Amino acid sequence: MIVTNPTVAALYLPRLRAALATRYARLLSVELPDGEEHKHWQTLNLIFDALLNNGCDRRTTVYALGGGVVGDIAGFAAASFMRGVPYVQVPTTLLSQVDSSVGGKTAINHPLGKNLIGAFHQPLRVVCDLDVLTSLPDRELRAGLAEVVKYGAIADWTFFEWIESHATALLVRDVDALAHAVQRSCEIKAAVVAQDERESDLRAVLNFGHTFGHAIEAGLGFGNWLHGEAVAAGMVLGAALSVKLGLIDPAVSERLVALLSKLGLPTKVPALGADRYLSLMRLDKKAVSREIRFVVLTGRGEAALRPAPDAVVREVIEMHVA
Amino acid sequence: MIVTNPTVAALYLPRLRAALATRYARLLSVELPDGEEHKHWQTLNLIFDALLNNGCDRRTTVYALGGGVVGDIAGFAAASFMRGVPYVQVPTTLLSQVDSSVGGKTAINHPLGKNLIGAFHQPLRVVCDLDVLTSLPDRELRAGLAEVVKYGAIADWTFFEWIESHATALLVRDVDALAHAVQRSCEIKAAVVAQDERESDLRAVLNFGHTFGHAIEAGLGFGNWLHGEAVAAGMVLGAALSVKLGLIDPAVSERLVALLSKLGLPTKVPALGADRYLSLMRLDKKAVSREIRFVVLTGRGEAALRPAPDAVVREVIEMHVA
Repeated sequence: MIVTNPTVAALYLPRLRAALATRYARLLSVELPDGEEHKHWQTLNLIFDALLNNGCDRRTTVYALGGGVVGDIAGFAAASFMRGVPYVQVPTTLLSQVDSSVGGKTAINHPLGKNLIGAFHQPLRVVCDLDVLTSLPDRELRAGLAEVVKYGAIADWTFFEWIESHATALLVRDVDALAHAVQRSCEIKAAVVAQDERESDLRAVLNFGHTFGHAIEAGLGFGNWLHGEAVAAGMVLGAALSVKLGLIDPAVSERLVALLSKLGLPTKVPALGADRYLSLMRLDKKAVSREIRFVVLTGRGEAALRPAPDAVVREVIEMHVA
Repeated sequence: MIVTNPTVAALYLPRLRAALATRYARLLSVELPDGEEHKHWQTLNLIFDALLNNGCDRRTTVYALGGGVVGDIAGFAAASFMRGVPYVQVPTTLLSQVDSSVGGKTAINHPLGKNLIGAFHQPLRVVCDLDVLTSLPDRELRAGLAEVVKYGAIADWTFFEWIESHATALLVRDVDALAHAVQRSCEIKAAVVAQDERESDLRAVLNFGHTFGHAIEAGLGFGNWLHGEAVAAGMVLGAALSVKLGLIDPAVSERLVALLSKLGLPTKVPALGADRYLSLMRLDKKAVSREIRFVVLTGRGEAALRPAPDAVVREVIEMHVA
């Protein structure tokens, strides 16, 4: 059962069907409405309906062909259909290749927040075909690069510097540059997840920029900013917070802002008001007993999880309103 | 977060709250509409709404206070809320004490079948308080005894004979008899699940009577027959099939029918037509690639998984129409 959306299906469904034709007795597909705003129960149920109306059973394998929304919903459908069937991720955006397709996190949104309902369910395999990136809109390419920058910032300063020197090559989709960016990002993510699948503190550093980022997405209504754009602005706030807490030299934060700007990504946040940001962040899965724990930078290519006084967080937000 | 229903809440919620008061900083509860016909997405979402509207996070523990429906939905909510939080089963029916509360199967129904969407998620603990059985309606007590009989039939003939000689004691709720029945049933189930959590063939023998039983429930519309009643009639068909396949002596089947009758359980199936039964059974999770695999008895206290020719299955169904 190939789960996809109409945009991706038009571009790549025939090719995937052809590739799988000799491997399965029967190939089916279901197309979901496109976009983060459809990442909810009703859309998930379209997959269950398709599986059950076609008599699928526990031997069915689910393929997720698309970006992060398709991957997250299809993964959760695979996790919960008949209490779990295998699935394969075939991510078609840079963002999903370097982030959501690796690590087994699946989820749907709830009106009160992103990814609040889901499962840990590892894919059998993740297939990153760089050819699909040629059809990706520029804005989505840039959003994907935000997560690539994140891996450098939290885990590998050499990689961060490589991105600085290859920013233009990445933006013009130089295939060697993209190959290195995808490979190194997946390596870093897989290494972290292998040590901490269920997200104790270690895996949580992968959420650098995400606590602020999720609040931006939830505050604006899902689908207005791309996830990677929200993460970019969120990383700027995370780095500023790290400076305020005395954890890093301001120069580190400045290089991050400069690199994100060069990649055409936002470095300011929408004017929702600091109170609204704080209440949205308290709802985040990573908040424990109402205390928000932020991923902060503790050095070049190093990160950790820390609480922060509300007053400091407010100040950081107010410094960065667009 | 205590998940329960209005009937059970009126009887036992204050007692559970009192028992937990010193252990948690905050106790919340949510009441679900009662009955198998409510075991679907909308009811599951009531739990997510209650959790999120009260600011619950990953440190929240879910308590399922009620029968199998409450336990299955609350367990699936715990499995998928923020990708998994701990939960405790406090089953208040005999059926859920001896069956659904043990083993970590959680699920909701889909219009096309029972328990088709769910997760394996082991409870922290299962608390079986025999006092709660005093408030159980007779019909539900009998339905629970169907699963007790099942354990004897598939795994322990000595236990089966003990049930034969204690049928009256069980029906009048003799506390020592109930204690032995619950304990031995949970021991058998736990031993099987410990060897095969994810249901390869071994765990599947616990589904004796369930393939036919699920078809009865789905065919009549969920909520008309109690699950245990459908399983009782399903076991009669399973035993008859075992006789037809030459696997057991007819005397074994006759003793099973006699015991179920003595316990006031159905031993005939509703007249849905053999075709309808076959098509419903092909939809069962345990069907693999359209072949229905039946749990059959292979001796006294022994069971196995076997396919069977449609013609034989038809004959068995037609022999047992009420």
